[in-house]
Amino acid sequence: MLEPNDYKVADLSLAEAGRHQIRLAEHEMPGLMALREEYAEEQPLRGARIAGSLHMTVQTAVLIETLTALGAEVRWASCNIFSTQDEAAAAVVVGQGTPERPEGVPVFAWKNETLPEYWWATRQILTWPGADENPDAGPNMILDDGGDATLLVHKGVEFEAAGTVPADPEEGDEDYSYEYTVILAALRESLAENPQRFTRLAERIQGVTEETTTGVHRLYQLAEEGKLLFPAINVNDSVTKSKFDNKYGIRHSLPDGLNRATDVLIGGKVAFVAGYGDVGKGAAEALRGQGARVIVSEVDPICALQAVMDGYQVARLEDVVEDADIFITTTGNKDVIRAEHMLRMKNKAIVGNVGHFDNEIDMASLAKTEGVRKVEIKPQVHEWVLGEGTDNERSIIVLSEGRLLNLGNATGHPSFVMSNSFANQTIAQIELFTKHGRTTAGGSPEYANQVYVLPKILDEKVARLHLDALGVRLTELSKAQAAYIGVDAAGPYKPDHYRY
Amino acid sequence: MLEPNDYKVADLSLAEAGRHQIRLAEHEMPGLMALREEYAEEQPLRGARIAGSLHMTVQTAVLIETLTALGAEVRWASCNIFSTQDEAAAAVVVGQGTPERPEGVPVFAWKNETLPEYWWATRQILTWPGADENPDAGPNMILDDGGDATLLVHKGVEFEAAGTVPADPEEGDEDYSYEYTVILAALRESLAENPQRFTRLAERIQGVTEETTTGVHRLYQLAEEGKLLFPAINVNDSVTKSKFDNKYGIRHSLPDGLNRATDVLIGGKVAFVAGYGDVGKGAAEALRGQGARVIVSEVDPICALQAVMDGYQVARLEDVVEDADIFITTTGNKDVIRAEHMLRMKNKAIVGNVGHFDNEIDMASLAKTEGVRKVEIKPQVHEWVLGEGTDNERSIIVLSEGRLLNLGNATGHPSFVMSNSFANQTIAQIELFTKHGRTTAGGSPEYANQVYVLPKILDEKVARLHLDALGVRLTELSKAQAAYIGVDAAGPYKPDHYRY
Amino acid sequence: MLEPNDYKVADLSLAEAGRHQIRLAEHEMPGLMALREEYAEEQPLRGARIAGSLHMTVQTAVLIETLTALGAEVRWASCNIFSTQDEAAAAVVVGQGTPERPEGVPVFAWKNETLPEYWWATRQILTWPGADENPDAGPNMILDDGGDATLLVHKGVEFEAAGTVPADPEEGDEDYSYEYTVILAALRESLAENPQRFTRLAERIQGVTEETTTGVHRLYQLAEEGKLLFPAINVNDSVTKSKFDNKYGIRHSLPDGLNRATDVLIGGKVAFVAGYGDVGKGAAEALRGQGARVIVSEVDPICALQAVMDGYQVARLEDVVEDADIFITTTGNKDVIRAEHMLRMKNKAIVGNVGHFDNEIDMASLAKTEGVRKVEIKPQVHEWVLGEGTDNERSIIVLSEGRLLNLGNATGHPSFVMSNSFANQTIAQIELFTKHGRTTAGGSPEYANQVYVLPKILDEKVARLHLDALGVRLTELSKAQAAYIGVDAAGPYKPDHYRY
Amino acid sequence: MLEPNDYKVADLSLAEAGRHQIRLAEHEMPGLMALREEYAEEQPLRGARIAGSLHMTVQTAVLIETLTALGAEVRWASCNIFSTQDEAAAAVVVGQGTPERPEGVPVFAWKNETLPEYWWATRQILTWPGADENPDAGPNMILDDGGDATLLVHKGVEFEAAGTVPADPEEGDEDYSYEYTVILAALRESLAENPQRFTRLAERIQGVTEETTTGVHRLYQLAEEGKLLFPAINVNDSVTKSKFDNKYGIRHSLPDGLNRATDVLIGGKVAFVAGYGDVGKGAAEALRGQGARVIVSEVDPICALQAVMDGYQVARLEDVVEDADIFITTTGNKDVIRAEHMLRMKNKAIVGNVGHFDNEIDMASLAKTEGVRKVEIKPQVHEWVLGEGTDNERSIIVLSEGRLLNLGNATGHPSFVMSNSFANQTIAQIELFTKHGRTTAGGSPEYANQVYVLPKILDEKVARLHLDALGVRLTELSKAQAAYIGVDAAGPYKPDHYRY
Repeated sequence: MLEPNDYKVADLSLAEAGRHQIRLAEHEMPGLMALREEYAEEQPLRGARIAGSLHMTVQTAVLIETLTALGAEVRWASCNIFSTQDEAAAAVVVGQGTPERPEGVPVFAWKNETLPEYWWATRQILTWPGADENPDAGPNMILDDGGDATLLVHKGVEFEAAGTVPADPEEGDEDYSYEYTVILAALRESLAENPQRFTRLAERIQGVTEETTTGVHRLYQLAEEGKLLFPAINVNDSVTKSKFDNKYGIRHSLPDGLNRATDVLIGGKVAFVAGYGDVGKGAAEALRGQGARVIVSEVDPICALQAVMDGYQVARLEDVVEDADIFITTTGNKDVIRAEHMLRMKNKAIVGNVGHFDNEIDMASLAKTEGVRKVEIKPQVHEWVLGEGTDNERSIIVLSEGRLLNLGNATGHPSFVMSNSFANQTIAQIELFTKHGRTTAGGSPEYANQVYVLPKILDEKVARLHLDALGVRLTELSKAQAAYIGVDAAGPYKPDHYRY
Repeated sequence: MLEPNDYKVADLSLAEAGRHQIRLAEHEMPGLMALREEYAEEQPLRGARIAGSLHMTVQTAVLIETLTALGAEVRWASCNIFSTQDEAAAAVVVGQGTPERPEGVPVFAWKNETLPEYWWATRQILTWPGADENPDAGPNMILDDGGDATLLVHKGVEFEAAGTVPADPEEGDEDYSYEYTVILAALRESLAENPQRFTRLAERIQGVTEETTTGVHRLYQLAEEGKLLFPAINVNDSVTKSKFDNKYGIRHSLPDGLNRATDVLIGGKVAFVAGYGDVGKGAAEALRGQGARVIVSEVDPICALQAVMDGYQVARLEDVVEDADIFITTTGNKDVIRAEHMLRMKNKAIVGNVGHFDNEIDMASLAKTEGVRKVEIKPQVHEWVLGEGTDNERSIIVLSEGRLLNLGNATGHPSFVMSNSFANQTIAQIELFTKHGRTTAGGSPEYANQVYVLPKILDEKVARLHLDALGVRLTELSKAQAAYIGVDAAGPYKPDHYRY
Repeated sequence: MLEPNDYKVADLSLAEAGRHQIRLAEHEMPGLMALREEYAEEQPLRGARIAGSLHMTVQTAVLIETLTALGAEVRWASCNIFSTQDEAAAAVVVGQGTPERPEGVPVFAWKNETLPEYWWATRQILTWPGADENPDAGPNMILDDGGDATLLVHKGVEFEAAGTVPADPEEGDEDYSYEYTVILAALRESLAENPQRFTRLAERIQGVTEETTTGVHRLYQLAEEGKLLFPAINVNDSVTKSKFDNKYGIRHSLPDGLNRATDVLIGGKVAFVAGYGDVGKGAAEALRGQGARVIVSEVDPICALQAVMDGYQVARLEDVVEDADIFITTTGNKDVIRAEHMLRMKNKAIVGNVGHFDNEIDMASLAKTEGVRKVEIKPQVHEWVLGEGTDNERSIIVLSEGRLLNLGNATGHPSFVMSNSFANQTIAQIELFTKHGRTTAGGSPEYANQVYVLPKILDEKVARLHLDALGVRLTELSKAQAAYIGVDAAGPYKPDHYRY
Repeated sequence: MLEPNDYKVADLSLAEAGRHQIRLAEHEMPGLMALREEYAEEQPLRGARIAGSLHMTVQTAVLIETLTALGAEVRWASCNIFSTQDEAAAAVVVGQGTPERPEGVPVFAWKNETLPEYWWATRQILTWPGADENPDAGPNMILDDGGDATLLVHKGVEFEAAGTVPADPEEGDEDYSYEYTVILAALRESLAENPQRFTRLAERIQGVTEETTTGVHRLYQLAEEGKLLFPAINVNDSVTKSKFDNKYGIRHSLPDGLNRATDVLIGGKVAFVAGYGDVGKGAAEALRGQGARVIVSEVDPICALQAVMDGYQVARLEDVVEDADIFITTTGNKDVIRAEHMLRMKNKAIVGNVGHFDNEIDMASLAKTEGVRKVEIKPQVHEWVLGEGTDNERSIIVLSEGRLLNLGNATGHPSFVMSNSFANQTIAQIELFTKHGRTTAGGSPEYANQVYVLPKILDEKVARLHLDALGVRLTELSKAQAAYIGVDAAGPYKPDHYRY
């Protein structure tokens, strides 16, 4: 059922364009489509009311429609103010338009939200019609990316217990951020409407599934402090998430971003890749595959040894900063490329980030450097003129202002990669919803208020769901062979510590 | 000097955007910039009046401004009705705006011309102000891509000799094409204005340089028939053109085109590449570098053996058409992928061409097939629904309507690759202009009305001009070493038949 | 001290040849050499009396001399009847011949031992001069590869407690093997000499370090049953062992073995690799690097998905057995290539194993097949004629009789790879000897009678010791960066479950 | 027919071992075996009496038996004093032992000949029984590798015309070499026996086919000077020779040689490759495929640009000589690695040559350097101690004394590669024998006393003969397609200057 008043993007022509793209994406998301088929009859999510907070893209549309195909009711917001693809949102709101599936799903997301709009939207996915009167009509599952929905619930419960929302911190206070004041304002409004809304809601949440490093980190902290209010599944550390999303996704989307942003031939260039974790491995492979010579930097001696054995030069940035043409950060740490480095780079060197945090490249200190000027070449591509007017005047090209260039300059991971991540999300939702420890859904109490990873057999299942589309025929173990290596013929095939 | 009346794109804000891009492209075109520096004083093209017909892109702007920096006067048109980048054209018209270089160059090109506009523009580059009165004020050099400027001159001379332009052929006649009638109309207009224009002009042309297979083919035919009116240099067969443009250019621009057109992860897919010439070699390397499994088809047993030795499966299209996810043609032949093949492809298979002619994929017969429907997903990306309503309903995705996808879905070859091709063009212009066989410029008559390739030493020079930018330091032969292998220490280093 | 009577290989010219090779190997074993330097003064193994059971090769000689350089006394036997390199053994026995290091080490190993000789040798490393009288003069550490020294101690203790060694099982009994009867005979002899020898010895053993999957498996079983008599460190699962030894070692030694065994060009061939674990990954990379087209088979869907994403075809053996030219097993399972497969292979197909067990290729059933004849081409290379006299007569080439071809047809892993494994062994010896739970060496009781893996910080240390030799300069985390990602700036850098 | 008196290696057990290897090699030489089949009936070499001078290896045995299978009579010598594989020679002498093919071929070659023995053997292949009496019983074709047989004939004719063999030059004379005095002695003996032997013989030679750069160079010189006595086909410049032998052969045999010579892990090392021609391309690819980081040096800017575009660093040796672990020369020039370089290398650096001439590495000046000592590690592997007794004492490892390491440390190119070269030889023999310009065989006089390359259609044929064995199915051009690109549907498919 379409709710036009609370949603801006229900535009039928947009929706039609989005539906085309969703249809093509379905083909590239065989994991989700296989789950739809497998569970078509069983409807394991019947009764699930899922509050979803995750980039509202074409791929997410396929996820949402998979969840509803398995019986769930869903409300959705994006987890990033920029990342919504409006045509995807519109198509989801309008629904699939078939006789069997006439209805759409309420989506509260549009491209370029303000922060107050963003947190309003996040509240909407947790505020279900009628739930103030009947808490059992509210959400009972959270699907999270970055942990914002989970954060809102935990803060809401905390402040409701205190009876009040604290005053805004001042600028300069340690816990001050503009965004935090927006969250506090949203909760003040909520407490005014219903002073027990989040408390009751949290009691009924049967679990959250979370797919980012950051979100997972928050969950482990809450669990350690004994404050986690419901079970959580860490989808981020599934092999089919971490090894595939990070390595193969970046291998695809890094050159895509570079190519759309610039006119630079990657072949023959020297490319510097900071970090040789999974993201760095994918980045280095992509650049080498295009004929670049890749130099890697590493902190971890084991990853450094892997890089050398894979044929890459391993050096410190400061030792090669004058030699490279392209600089890519993949570390997840901060201040990896600093102003001092950028000032020594070649004229027209390209600097970009596919790590995680937008402080990997220390743009702030570059901006403060004397004699620096920023020129927009096109959106998400800026030339920074250095040492203007000196003998050493030069410029460098910074992509996406130091934020993730594969998102900012291209379209992020392709559908096939997301199919792996989202199949993990879907299976984790089924797992928690059908086996949680709350009484409302009658499941057996297998999960406590802790953080879990998916059992390896389910991780293997996610992989299995993608093999047909790639033309793979798996070999089957005979009983004797399975016994010989001490596993079940149906898997799991490896000990938990296996490194792949 | 800006001539706003005969040129549509002299728009100052466009020109500014174009100038930014030209400035960045200059950095990626070290061959051209090195030529500017080398010949800054000598001005070898002083006195040259060049009529240029070549895609009016940002890279071509750098070529044009290199020619003028070497002393030439230039008039320019595009060689394709779609390929002009209007901001590049505008920037060239407006000029570089510096005190030393205030003036621009007349450009007769804009995106999406009609055929009559196209041939009007081609006439403008050959019709110099005052040349009807004083033929020595007309063009004395042609720089060609595809041979249209050369064609117009040869046809003009032929019809001026006959005293009349023949009547249009009828549809159905062997020599009929709509474009030919447009050319005839343009020449009728010219003969009416000046019945000896092309005759006098051709007498003063000191040579043409041509960079395409097609244009070169026409030139060899004219030379064989004894009809070539001036010397020609075949730039297409320079090693630094054919091996670099074809192989390394495609390695870059094929995945770029695929990524911009679709959301498909190349990794893990089966890609079929028709042809293993230089273009096919670049295509296969690019796809493998992204993790695809590549199957090659070949007609030539030597190229087939190379493909196998490089680790690719070599098969016929009809034997693997049901297995591949992505189909790329690179052959330069026609009817390579036919309707009978497309009807057997997997659902959502992707079909694209980076060969040369838009009939490599036989779109015409697909369009005529019963039960076929074409849906535009976005410009240059079409879904063709096959067998609609049958049990076997499927669709395939065709890129750029079967035309070159690296141009249609991406931006063609990057500047660095074009720097190689254009440095060949510039050197060939200097060679012909300074050593031609006409009296007007006093050169020694080294070139007859034949087709030449650049001497290997100049081919090596083009390569040499690009090495500094890539951080290469060449080894130098000692005299004893040079003598030992029977070459000059300064090159050329290889016999003409060397294959690289 | 040389003991010529109990050791066959103390031959001075052999020793000299061995010393040359040891000297070259030292250069390729920077991990061990760095440990010698780091601990030259501290002498952490002073007081350690190590019984070592590990292939007596040139690389092991460098390990032995590292242990003694750190202060240990050592006695050594091989862990395989075939693997001793006599020149290495001789050189170790004779010693380094320098004034500082005049003495050798007792080695009880020679190429091609009988099983009684083998177990005699294993007894010698546990039977130290004077230890029957003074148990404190016996060994206090075991360094094991495959667990035979550990087995002998545990069986000895068991039978000494029972007061007798049981009678030999009969052929056909479940626990019968010829080798077991040899072990029983050895222990009968020992109990006759000293009925408490192993009991007293075991009380003084401060730990064992073990590097094979098989040996580790036995240790975990003993620990689970509560029967493990001393602490154990599982060196096999260090990242610097498993990821390096398996992947990079095989990448090197597989083509080496193929090339020495046959005259077959790998380029252009179709190679089938069973298994895509670390060994399979290394094998596939090596074969692709030589221009083969590689087809992988897998049981595990996650590894299968990795193989596809890496660009390999994944299929079942039975579906491609007629297409491949080279078949390599890497699984560690049994009956992976069976007679039914071999009978369908191409004429002159090559079959080899780099997995672990010699039953991966079911040679036994091939030998029993009718119409089969085996021809020795050269040692370790056999042609098996199939269907002799029929229309379908063919032959296949089997390497090393189905045993590890990189050992049988080449020389196994190169020194650099072993330097990683042996640095783990050495560090594990130091760890257990200096921090064990026994009183004799005064260490703090940090280790119980369980199986441990090396702490990640020591795994990182092993990697670190190899980086200098490869010209790597590691980046260092600032304090702020370390804090930001929640690690110590000196490592360890990753959580235990990190997959590399 | 076996001639035991003039041939040392007719040993039946050797012959049996050789026959095994020949049988396996036949499988890897599908080009030769296909020629046997194609021409089994036609017998195009019936009447040909071929004097062959080419390394007497297992692969050459397959060539010899192909020539005889096509009807030729053959006498054979090796073209190198070290390269004979005695078991191959023995097997050829003894023959195939089947009822259909009972007889062997006279072979005059054994491993480790002296120079007088070598030139005696070369005389034997030109001195056929009864030919002194009846010159038509002598050889009428030469198959050459390096040109020694051709040289002997030309010198013989020259001296016979002069009536005498000149006196030996003195040491120090420009034309002095020890080998030349051996040749003069051999010819003196011949003139004494028959003063017109070579003159009559040369009149009947219908042509020579030659496969080395050196031999071809001599032939072109003779032709230019008008001294070439019979037509010659340059097999060396067939694409299927130069591109395959050089690139794919070296890719295989370089790592094979390194691995057999040393225990050094190639992975992770820095490898320097001098030259990026076909041999250098194969070398670099092989080393990268094993995980080395490769640095290339080049003189030719075009090849340098190719190397950079392929992702390699290009530098001068003197700039990186302290960084590399492995040095490989591939240039075909002299003094590429000099003593001054070797003295600056890392301790235990490895130096080897796969180019052509044994002076690529200037061993002579190294040997003369003060403080240098040479230690044999094993045959063909020497340690050179540098700066002995100084603070900077080091050593480097030189393979095969600077000669071709793929021959010296391994077994040269594998059979499959040689099948390409030898199929060219065989086809060239047929071409010259059946279409020569002499009257004796009645052929049409298509060939003059010049040097020819094989027509492209025959080059394509050689490739075609190898495709079945690799599972390739070629695509066929339709008539319309062939017409469209202006070729015959059966080939040749490319212009002569095409570079592949």
